[in-house]
Amino acid sequence: MYPSTLHRVAILGTGVIGTSIGLALRRSGVRVTLSDLDGDVVAKAELMGAGAALTPGDPPADVVVIATPPSTVVGVLRDAQARGLGAVYTDVASTKGRIVREAELAGCDLTTFVPGHPMAGRELSGPFAARADLFSGRPWALCPHAATQAEHLHTVAELVAMCGGAPEVLAPGLHDRVVAAVSHAPHLVAAALSAGFAGADETMLSLVGKGLQDATRIATGDPGLWCDILGQNAGAVAAVLESVVTELDEAVRALRNVEHSGTGALADLLVRGNRGRDRIVAAWPARRVEKAGSRA
Amino acid sequence: MYPSTLHRVAILGTGVIGTSIGLALRRSGVRVTLSDLDGDVVAKAELMGAGAALTPGDPPADVVVIATPPSTVVGVLRDAQARGLGAVYTDVASTKGRIVREAELAGCDLTTFVPGHPMAGRELSGPFAARADLFSGRPWALCPHAATQAEHLHTVAELVAMCGGAPEVLAPGLHDRVVAAVSHAPHLVAAALSAGFAGADETMLSLVGKGLQDATRIATGDPGLWCDILGQNAGAVAAVLESVVTELDEAVRALRNVEHSGTGALADLLVRGNRGRDRIVAAWPARRVEKAGSRA
Repeated sequence: MYPSTLHRVAILGTGVIGTSIGLALRRSGVRVTLSDLDGDVVAKAELMGAGAALTPGDPPADVVVIATPPSTVVGVLRDAQARGLGAVYTDVASTKGRIVREAELAGCDLTTFVPGHPMAGRELSGPFAARADLFSGRPWALCPHAATQAEHLHTVAELVAMCGGAPEVLAPGLHDRVVAAVSHAPHLVAAALSAGFAGADETMLSLVGKGLQDATRIATGDPGLWCDILGQNAGAVAAVLESVVTELDEAVRALRNVEHSGTGALADLLVRGNRGRDRIVAAWPARRVEKAGSRA
Repeated sequence: MYPSTLHRVAILGTGVIGTSIGLALRRSGVRVTLSDLDGDVVAKAELMGAGAALTPGDPPADVVVIATPPSTVVGVLRDAQARGLGAVYTDVASTKGRIVREAELAGCDLTTFVPGHPMAGRELSGPFAARADLFSGRPWALCPHAATQAEHLHTVAELVAMCGGAPEVLAPGLHDRVVAAVSHAPHLVAAALSAGFAGADETMLSLVGKGLQDATRIATGDPGLWCDILGQNAGAVAAVLESVVTELDEAVRALRNVEHSGTGALADLLVRGNRGRDRIVAAWPARRVEKAGSRA
């Protein structure tokens, strides 16, 4: 174990994630400074109690958290390192491989950069949607580069733990394949399912129940931010979607031939679906027993 | 309005749905009798307080509820009508068009048959999973045939209201297209998404969050029962799945060409997904505000 080195944290980007990190750290007495391109948003994060606006005279932070959209992370990192804003840097973007590659190309100091990704968020955005317990019991990926120094990885893991998150260390490329499967591809599947209801009439909506409600929840989310995320992880997401499409194509074929071939192919898919679902339930760290689910 | 005619209800099939209907009706003092091919299951339903086992000397019921799997409903209906078990008959199967057609071919009395479908259920099955409030605030489709007498439709609507459900009257064929979209196709989509995790290693499961958890919840469910449901509504389900596949195929193409063509096509899908999701949220009768959703 390393001694606690977290006294000052600077957060660049005070949307719902950045502000939630500020709120979580303030519970432990960490001094948090806040910055955003939009001064109005910083004022809101301050109002929420997430910290104080960063000023030019502030001493360097122990950790600088970059909580801006994925495609902006490298530019913000380079600028922050040039200004000497802190000793260690991390980010919260949903993709990691491309950010690490571009940070290398941009000449960022990778020894002090610990790429990160908390697996939590809200449908709502902006500082007023922030919550101190947003990360409680949730995985938080840390994806060090070969050049990242171990002590800095430990410092950021400490920050994650202070936020209530569970650090999971994995390589940037592997992270991207994993989140393509558990987050990015499911987001597009939910969007495709929801899109069918964009022009639905009242009759089509009259029998909507909790099942469709849950299955489409993640179709909420800012399309601009999601295009940014998906564009940064396009290959991995496409590969997962292709396997979902293959399954669904086979299901369509089985349904079209059900009078002749029976439901064997459908049963196979449903059994594998049960098995995968069991693993997903067992894997979720914040395990909960569904009180009253509906399959309707 | 018609005067209340619901004093005695017989429930044939005491799984989770049949037993839940018994529990709900007993709250209003209705005398409920129970029957199932499996006497053990009836004994469990009695233990739950859902009613008393049906005996040969019982007077005819005001309504007979057939709560057996879809493919068995017509046989049970014909037998129950032949035995004169009640004045009015309804069922709870997830498909309606084929049951009505087959009931007609089988020579059932359609004047007293009010096909029904409560849009509620549980991942758990059997009488011990039953709950009196399972139908509270949920839609409950009633799908009369042209021959169904209006007074009998009203009687069954009264039963639905006593169970806390919201009766929605729609034609059998329309019902099947609607449930294909809101329930049956989403079930297969969730199964396809879950199936990818059936053989997943620990790393792939390390970042699972609430998003995937919710998106795959409906992948739970007995494959045998679901094959029965899907087989009875195959054409309508295939049509919905085909449009989901078309959306996902386009998303894959957009992801594969993102360096050249940008994210415009993805943005279009995500915006329509947002719009459809908004309509789904607004349509759900038991509206609830998500306390803390995760998009992870």
